[in-house]
Amino acid sequence: MSAKEKYNEFVQKMHRIADVRYANAVLQWDQETYLPPKGAALRGQQMATLSEIAHELFTDPALGTLLNELSTAKEITKQEQKNVALTLEDYNKNKKYSTVFVRKMSEATSKAYHAWINARKQDSFPVFAKELDELVQLKKEETQILGYTKHPYDALLNEYEKGATVEWLDQLFDELQAPLKALLGRIENKKAPETGFLHQHFDKDAQWKFGLEILKLTGYDFEAGRQDISEHPFTTSFNARDVRVTTRIDENDFTSMTWSCLHEGGHGLYEQGLPVDAYGLPSGEFCSLGIHESQSRLWENCIGRSLEFIRFALPVMQRYFPQLSTVSAQQLFGAVNKVQPSLIRTESDELTYHFHVMIRYQVEKMLMEGSLLSKDIPAYWNELYKKYLGVTVPNDKNGCLQDIHWSHGSFGYFPTYTLGSLYAAQFYHTIKQSSPALNEAVGSGDFSDIHKWLQTHVYQYGRTFTSDELCNKVTGEPLRMRYFMDYITDKYDIIYR
Amino acid sequence: MSAKEKYNEFVQKMHRIADVRYANAVLQWDQETYLPPKGAALRGQQMATLSEIAHELFTDPALGTLLNELSTAKEITKQEQKNVALTLEDYNKNKKYSTVFVRKMSEATSKAYHAWINARKQDSFPVFAKELDELVQLKKEETQILGYTKHPYDALLNEYEKGATVEWLDQLFDELQAPLKALLGRIENKKAPETGFLHQHFDKDAQWKFGLEILKLTGYDFEAGRQDISEHPFTTSFNARDVRVTTRIDENDFTSMTWSCLHEGGHGLYEQGLPVDAYGLPSGEFCSLGIHESQSRLWENCIGRSLEFIRFALPVMQRYFPQLSTVSAQQLFGAVNKVQPSLIRTESDELTYHFHVMIRYQVEKMLMEGSLLSKDIPAYWNELYKKYLGVTVPNDKNGCLQDIHWSHGSFGYFPTYTLGSLYAAQFYHTIKQSSPALNEAVGSGDFSDIHKWLQTHVYQYGRTFTSDELCNKVTGEPLRMRYFMDYITDKYDIIYR
Repeated sequence: MSAKEKYNEFVQKMHRIADVRYANAVLQWDQETYLPPKGAALRGQQMATLSEIAHELFTDPALGTLLNELSTAKEITKQEQKNVALTLEDYNKNKKYSTVFVRKMSEATSKAYHAWINARKQDSFPVFAKELDELVQLKKEETQILGYTKHPYDALLNEYEKGATVEWLDQLFDELQAPLKALLGRIENKKAPETGFLHQHFDKDAQWKFGLEILKLTGYDFEAGRQDISEHPFTTSFNARDVRVTTRIDENDFTSMTWSCLHEGGHGLYEQGLPVDAYGLPSGEFCSLGIHESQSRLWENCIGRSLEFIRFALPVMQRYFPQLSTVSAQQLFGAVNKVQPSLIRTESDELTYHFHVMIRYQVEKMLMEGSLLSKDIPAYWNELYKKYLGVTVPNDKNGCLQDIHWSHGSFGYFPTYTLGSLYAAQFYHTIKQSSPALNEAVGSGDFSDIHKWLQTHVYQYGRTFTSDELCNKVTGEPLRMRYFMDYITDKYDIIYR
Repeated sequence: MSAKEKYNEFVQKMHRIADVRYANAVLQWDQETYLPPKGAALRGQQMATLSEIAHELFTDPALGTLLNELSTAKEITKQEQKNVALTLEDYNKNKKYSTVFVRKMSEATSKAYHAWINARKQDSFPVFAKELDELVQLKKEETQILGYTKHPYDALLNEYEKGATVEWLDQLFDELQAPLKALLGRIENKKAPETGFLHQHFDKDAQWKFGLEILKLTGYDFEAGRQDISEHPFTTSFNARDVRVTTRIDENDFTSMTWSCLHEGGHGLYEQGLPVDAYGLPSGEFCSLGIHESQSRLWENCIGRSLEFIRFALPVMQRYFPQLSTVSAQQLFGAVNKVQPSLIRTESDELTYHFHVMIRYQVEKMLMEGSLLSKDIPAYWNELYKKYLGVTVPNDKNGCLQDIHWSHGSFGYFPTYTLGSLYAAQFYHTIKQSSPALNEAVGSGDFSDIHKWLQTHVYQYGRTFTSDELCNKVTGEPLRMRYFMDYITDKYDIIYR
């Protein structure tokens, strides 16, 4: 068999694996949107079976042999070589997990999820403590399975953001902390923007229709996607021609739905822009979670919370919500950018958001190195919230129980949220450099330069480059904090004169 | 390993297969309801992969060995022995199909489906002829693969209704034809009921809400199911706790949606009533297509088109549709039971419906025995419509191209529609015998005796008995035409005095 034929065989195998994985994603999407309640139990089993089958297909020794043979082939293109190399990495990593470990982890997360739900209901961390600790122990075991050079947490960070380490993130967060604190201090002495008008009654149907319109206006393709309602907004993809977003509607706060649409829309545009002919291959997959998040934050924040965008969007909003007819663009711009230290990450502003991330990063790092015990999380959590954000955590539900991630077994995920903000600011700065009239274009609802830049510099590459390589390639330098600091400082200087 | 342990292993294997099959059903449901148009191509591939995996799992020799060992085990219950025996039958049948044949059939149906769509668009049978003929040849090959004793068509009939043969159906249709013709003749001399009031404007939203209410009133469990909109109404199940129905809405004819809800609701009640703890096993599956259809027709026709039901439902309808406020139950009863020979099966009444079935049965039988060539279908089709129904077929679209089944490779399916009507009438007769005040109960919207009877006599057995065995067991005799003839004669005697 020629190298080309072997490569085709590899592609066929990857298609088959992708088919099973994406089928599972359809089941998950359905679970979050339309599943009748009594169907939940067997749906869980169906999804577990598909995961198992995908894992079996992906760890099939025949695939390993093929990959190893192809890894030295020179008769295939550079791009094809890259796909082989990345898949071989994935293959070798997946082979490290024993079936026993995979089942143990799956059972532990299932138990932990239900314990977390109950703990939130009862507002009591101890209800979650035992199951969380089991997960932490398994995660520590996983760091050994995966291996690491310096810090055990590195092994988990690397799962979400290839190459990320404690050493790098410690430094990044250290650098970020001081200027953020300083900016927050300046802001807290100024008059806060008025936000009362955001909290009127906003009709559900009108919000739904407005959400669809705003998604359409930003370029999301409804022929290759759709929006539905779910408890927690998310984006999922079954291939680049079927990318779905969800939203939720709060009738007393229309900003929640609007900027969530922009956020998920940004994720959706990325997935719709991935090369569909690389279905199932690394070059058809997203780069990293940090880069994915950069896409949502670019649309939600850099664009969506800019004065220009609000100037463009306000007349559209006013068509749907006459109660906003007396609000000016300037007022809305201030209101949706108000800075306010608070308890809940997902409701926080672009500045204090990163303290939430740093706190969880700190807690997870210590759990993994063994310097913090699971049972001591609440006390330490509350201490850090006082220290970083000056807020007193009144209960666990609004404290260390607020996020679902741990109950899913996701440790090492949160830093990608901050990385997303930093990448977004650096990308958006670069786009502006290459398109000097960008603000005017955004003000008139013309996003074509942005689409073109993202397609050319981000979407088309899939997972061909790491986030670090991509950043260097398309912005000319590695990730720098200063673009984000410049971006929020400029913005808050206008709002908080 | 003990027989009990082996049985448990068998159950585990069947669960895994069911998980994959039902996952595929979720993808199919999504395809018919919510799939964005550009997602269709890769969705087709994803579904083909899941089908292939299910086939591989089900034809795994290890399953065969286990089944053969279990087939002589005496230490498992009678019910368990039955599950093993039925699965072994399925296994042996599936093993007959070579991978090559399965792929050929899958490709041929895919091509035929698109050709059928185009043929309908262009209203031209020749556009479909070549692909249809390929399918017919493959189906003839399939009759050889499956094997038969007397008539090749028997092999295909048996796929949908175990034990059904040309010999039996020829006799059944022969017997049915004369009294149906006679009844039709009597009716055609009488004054037809007024139907004009059915064809007003009926608001879409009101129809949607009414459909949900009528489904709830008949006992469909929305905690274990849901209704959505699709081009063609259907019922699908992902397990007995997640059974979904769909409907479509015609704003100029509310009867279409209403009785389609009752029809699909009847299918849905059956699936919701199957034993959920027999998930993936024959005892957890529906008996046959004829019995499935009996459940939809029992609710749509025997109950839904009865004067008693209409007395109960009319006030509910009038709440949603004030334009019906002057219509009497008697008038509506007449209107939804009007007999009218026509071209389209799905729009036909309970009497002439069976001529549509007989015509297609006749055509398929001759195709399989080789006494009719595909290219000669339209001429023969039109001849039969003239002969049986006295109507002139104006074009292929409203003639032999009207139904999707052939393009799916479904030959031998149609007789189950007539069998469904006959079983429904015989079951309903038996229910009435055991519950003398049934008409009054239905008139007050009380379906509890019907639910109880169906649960006890049909649902709980799953596929444990064949339709013939089931019919004998629960009605005391084999399928008899006279219950259906009595049922429609009684009804039409009232309407066509």
